[in-house]
Amino acid sequence: MAKENEVNCTEMKRGSWLTYRPDIKVLDCTIRDGGLVNNFYFKDEFVKAVYHTLIEMNVDYMEIGKIVNEKALDPSKYGIWNYCKEDDIRRVIGDNEDTDLKIAVMADIGRTFKEDIRPRDESIVDMIRVACYIHQIPAALELIEDAHKKGYETTCNLMAVSKCSKDDIKEALRLIVDSPVDVVYLVDSFGSYYSEQIRDLTRIYLEIAEAKGKVVGFHGHNNQQLAYANTVETLICGTSYLDATIGGLGRGAGNCPLELLIGFLKNPKYHIVPLLKFIQDYIVPLQKEIHWGYDIAYMLTGQLNEHPRSAIKFIDEKGTDYVDFFNSLCDVQE
Amino acid sequence: MAKENEVNCTEMKRGSWLTYRPDIKVLDCTIRDGGLVNNFYFKDEFVKAVYHTLIEMNVDYMEIGKIVNEKALDPSKYGIWNYCKEDDIRRVIGDNEDTDLKIAVMADIGRTFKEDIRPRDESIVDMIRVACYIHQIPAALELIEDAHKKGYETTCNLMAVSKCSKDDIKEALRLIVDSPVDVVYLVDSFGSYYSEQIRDLTRIYLEIAEAKGKVVGFHGHNNQQLAYANTVETLICGTSYLDATIGGLGRGAGNCPLELLIGFLKNPKYHIVPLLKFIQDYIVPLQKEIHWGYDIAYMLTGQLNEHPRSAIKFIDEKGTDYVDFFNSLCDVQE
Repeated sequence: MAKENEVNCTEMKRGSWLTYRPDIKVLDCTIRDGGLVNNFYFKDEFVKAVYHTLIEMNVDYMEIGKIVNEKALDPSKYGIWNYCKEDDIRRVIGDNEDTDLKIAVMADIGRTFKEDIRPRDESIVDMIRVACYIHQIPAALELIEDAHKKGYETTCNLMAVSKCSKDDIKEALRLIVDSPVDVVYLVDSFGSYYSEQIRDLTRIYLEIAEAKGKVVGFHGHNNQQLAYANTVETLICGTSYLDATIGGLGRGAGNCPLELLIGFLKNPKYHIVPLLKFIQDYIVPLQKEIHWGYDIAYMLTGQLNEHPRSAIKFIDEKGTDYVDFFNSLCDVQE
Repeated sequence: MAKENEVNCTEMKRGSWLTYRPDIKVLDCTIRDGGLVNNFYFKDEFVKAVYHTLIEMNVDYMEIGKIVNEKALDPSKYGIWNYCKEDDIRRVIGDNEDTDLKIAVMADIGRTFKEDIRPRDESIVDMIRVACYIHQIPAALELIEDAHKKGYETTCNLMAVSKCSKDDIKEALRLIVDSPVDVVYLVDSFGSYYSEQIRDLTRIYLEIAEAKGKVVGFHGHNNQQLAYANTVETLICGTSYLDATIGGLGRGAGNCPLELLIGFLKNPKYHIVPLLKFIQDYIVPLQKEIHWGYDIAYMLTGQLNEHPRSAIKFIDEKGTDYVDFFNSLCDVQE
């Protein structure tokens, strides 16, 4: 019997090096997490190209943005993908008929309300992903319940667990799995977890989720160049919904790069060539316009288990003094 | 009893999250692996700054270059750190007295010969690292024997094992550990290994090495953004010599970044602030002059377990067509 804090990988391991697990689903959140870099100001052509690329690749889900209420965040300050109105989505990608790609949107607790979610049969959206902090769980459960009743697949993405005690995480998970939610996400919000911690947490999430017939997903950040490594570790241990973004596009240090993940997965349905084409046509030019990806400043917030906002500010202001930045982070924590 | 290809991490794990293992040694190879990017044309000031930074950080070893015979590679085509003449080293870093930092150089089989290695008491160098391919083991063993007799610490860095069968690797390791070598290195030459493979190989290396009182080291490459993740996995499993470079500077996708590794290690003797200072003063400017680090082209050679030379050429020639590059790699392998 493994002790607390010890993870037996032999016991946990699912699948082998050469086979694949058909339960694995890849969820691309390029537009949603990338939207946090450019305030959701993507051109229609870009979003359309992501959509067609994911279909050609046989990716399972595309998270196309957030479904924020316009009263919560002023629409003059953000692009349309922060609101994901039905008409906007359909104008850009059509009605998504005759494809296996499912469409997801993220609902932030405090910024998305029941009235923002229309009945499933009036919407192109297949999945509502509810993001919440641990103190927002009651509100998240209400929204999940509502979205489920309306006919959607749902996930609960519990954020910033690296700031929570293990006991609190377990209690939160027990509440979440008692809802009609389909997928519970392990989220490394600050890119602070090492792989052995991810294995330990995966075990906890799986035990609690599977007891109620739920599955577990993973969403990583690349502050310590571990987003992909942690994604692989958690999937080996049994996680089945895996988030990634093209070129790792995402806030701060970005996310697990889809091209790395597709290279690891053995399911022959996934194709990398359309992705390489998209990267050369759209990501390489975008890298000249906006900044994301590994940087010493993001590494430091990751190592110190802090929200990346101070690092984002440091980089936006073209900071060059890493020592000073590091000292400021340490001061804050004393 | 774990089956072949199954690794029991609970059994293998050494140390806990909060303690540290005093047997761990950090070896910086910024100048040696970085020299493969700029043909060893580092300014004296840069090398001196690396040296003083590592001393302030309490890093254990500095690999200052290669000890290549001038007949093997024309000295008009490379900087002095490809040859590491005694006078050059001493001119730049002095006599390395009153420091705990040990100096290492790399000897490539076929390019370094016994006559290139002077007796230990006439040299500032403490460690000779012998790099070889599996078919060069007899030559490597001769050089190790000679260096050991002359008084040096020695390592054997067996390259490109991802192209070898496990049986061949085991036979090679048994030959190596029968020599007077101190450290046997697991080397991920092409950045192609996933963490579960690294754990499996670490187990093999440790079993064979420890039976003869040797320790194991790890040298990774970052083609799949796994150099740091794999370094952490192998150290958790028991590897004790860990290679890293400042800013990940190194050929192609580069190496395990020293700043990430120092963030993980719990030994209070290691300090990160001098490293952050070096990065802002020297690495940030250097990134404008020479290119290294993660790139789709290096990712592809890593995923396909190929030498990065085609990717280096693609990037040097400012290639933009990743699809074409990918197809060319696949053709070669058929």
